[in-house]
Amino acid sequence: MKALRVNSGKASVEDIAVPDVPGEALVRVVCSGICSTDLEIIKGYAAFDGTIGHEFVGIVESCSDAPALVRRRVVGEINAGCGACPLCLAGDPRHCPTRTVLGIKGRDGSHAEYLSLPSQNLIPVPDNVTNEQAVFAEPLAAAIGITEQVEIAPDTRVAVIGDGKLGQLCARALAALTDHTSIVGKHSSKLKRAEDHGIETFLAEKAGQLSGHFDVVVEASGAESGFASALDLVRPRGKIVLKSTFHGRPSWEAWRVVVDEITVVGSRCGRIGPALEHLAGNKIKVDDLIEDRFSLANALNAIDRAAARGTMKVLLDTET
Amino acid sequence: MKALRVNSGKASVEDIAVPDVPGEALVRVVCSGICSTDLEIIKGYAAFDGTIGHEFVGIVESCSDAPALVRRRVVGEINAGCGACPLCLAGDPRHCPTRTVLGIKGRDGSHAEYLSLPSQNLIPVPDNVTNEQAVFAEPLAAAIGITEQVEIAPDTRVAVIGDGKLGQLCARALAALTDHTSIVGKHSSKLKRAEDHGIETFLAEKAGQLSGHFDVVVEASGAESGFASALDLVRPRGKIVLKSTFHGRPSWEAWRVVVDEITVVGSRCGRIGPALEHLAGNKIKVDDLIEDRFSLANALNAIDRAAARGTMKVLLDTET
Repeated sequence: MKALRVNSGKASVEDIAVPDVPGEALVRVVCSGICSTDLEIIKGYAAFDGTIGHEFVGIVESCSDAPALVRRRVVGEINAGCGACPLCLAGDPRHCPTRTVLGIKGRDGSHAEYLSLPSQNLIPVPDNVTNEQAVFAEPLAAAIGITEQVEIAPDTRVAVIGDGKLGQLCARALAALTDHTSIVGKHSSKLKRAEDHGIETFLAEKAGQLSGHFDVVVEASGAESGFASALDLVRPRGKIVLKSTFHGRPSWEAWRVVVDEITVVGSRCGRIGPALEHLAGNKIKVDDLIEDRFSLANALNAIDRAAARGTMKVLLDTET
Repeated sequence: MKALRVNSGKASVEDIAVPDVPGEALVRVVCSGICSTDLEIIKGYAAFDGTIGHEFVGIVESCSDAPALVRRRVVGEINAGCGACPLCLAGDPRHCPTRTVLGIKGRDGSHAEYLSLPSQNLIPVPDNVTNEQAVFAEPLAAAIGITEQVEIAPDTRVAVIGDGKLGQLCARALAALTDHTSIVGKHSSKLKRAEDHGIETFLAEKAGQLSGHFDVVVEASGAESGFASALDLVRPRGKIVLKSTFHGRPSWEAWRVVVDEITVVGSRCGRIGPALEHLAGNKIKVDDLIEDRFSLANALNAIDRAAARGTMKVLLDTET
């Protein structure tokens, strides 16, 4: 089968064997979304070699321990825990110290014709959710995860920094809970997409007037300057949610966090179930975030497209 | 009167007028403690010029709006708010945007024969608390403040980084709530002081074995490396409390905060009341933390002593 692989920082489409992992389900991938983390991995983040990709929708081909899943259309929880440590036994393998992560850590990913995952990681997709919506389940889960870590009330003033695909999903997830959601970005055209969803928008160059205005600020720009911007926007005793896995060692004014008693919350994954519910209930719309589509054979062009400044979601059609 | 003043980064003992602020109480200072923040201010932190010092015990000389306080022995809340903003009206001036802060921001401090504060900032000291204990009320309040921001249960595993005076107070405040308090430091002699209070101790060079072990890690070392050490010690989804106002822009591995979903809590001030209760109830002992005492006339020698590596609390006897 074809797969988009990374080897020592070089990406290529290769022909490899269909996965055959005893005890796991085999999924025929239908559609796979390119995430900024994929681009970071190609640059060396996470030191991962193998098939990348972790946002997918597919059809279960075989599944020995859960035969009812066969032929079902599914999306997947990307963390696979050891099953034996206290965190796994408590039902949450997302922080299992020896976990593998689809297309990120110790496990081949979804930019391929087939992938393998434990059956318990697979979640059937409701019939009224299209493939193009379902492929957003993983990043949308990550966005909704913020609301499980930080209390968002109807009167909470929230700003999202970053008008890219992650920022757009975070702002939409937050706007489902508070009428006071703003997005701060550098591109008028991208901000326009948020306005269409009832979100207030600000160009970054004009955000100075909002200094200290927000109860919660979500850093989703992935830029080194993002944290400093968040510190400017948040009120004393407010919360900053770090959502981007910016690969580097930015400097920060730690003393400001102390003096203003800011809380900084690192936020990575969410739960797929609530994301599917929001998509099925049409509570969060994602269709306008798709920028382009490529076949798996053209995956390198898709990566270039996704890496171009200002690009929203790029999808890979993985069926041949 | 004599006062220890900072002018453009230079400290000196000067003769200045006794403060006379209409509507405020006049306090004759008996004893004033030197804090690391004082040393940072002399180095330029907070751009403060004036009398430094914010840890004190004194006798109220005059107080027009609360005459019952006259001749009472008091300690003080160091933040004085505007009294009119939403934060002040809610009863907490600690984050009032136009607040003054004793010896730190817009208000002369306590390393002087007299100081001035609003009467509502003054809290009488119980008779069974000595002057040498009462002078710890402010830094102890800051230490206890951690327990108001982060939940500490009897089984919470806590590590404090830094075996100096701030770290010692934090560890003792936390050990009042959990039996699993450790302190990590670089000096065997200082760690010994914590052991005497039932706290487990580790030399920093041996802390590697504790990687990911703690639910809560308090950074109280004031060292640039402190945050990286805290990241090593905290478990996934654990909390790091930043307590030191380290003046600089350290670099940090923000991506680790995201991947391990760490929460970082900035913590500055606490409330004086609970600190006095702990001292009066003999629940937290501080007497062994006093390293040396100087007269106000010798305040520059006291500053040198406080700045010397490994020094615990240095007190100024301000009565002449």
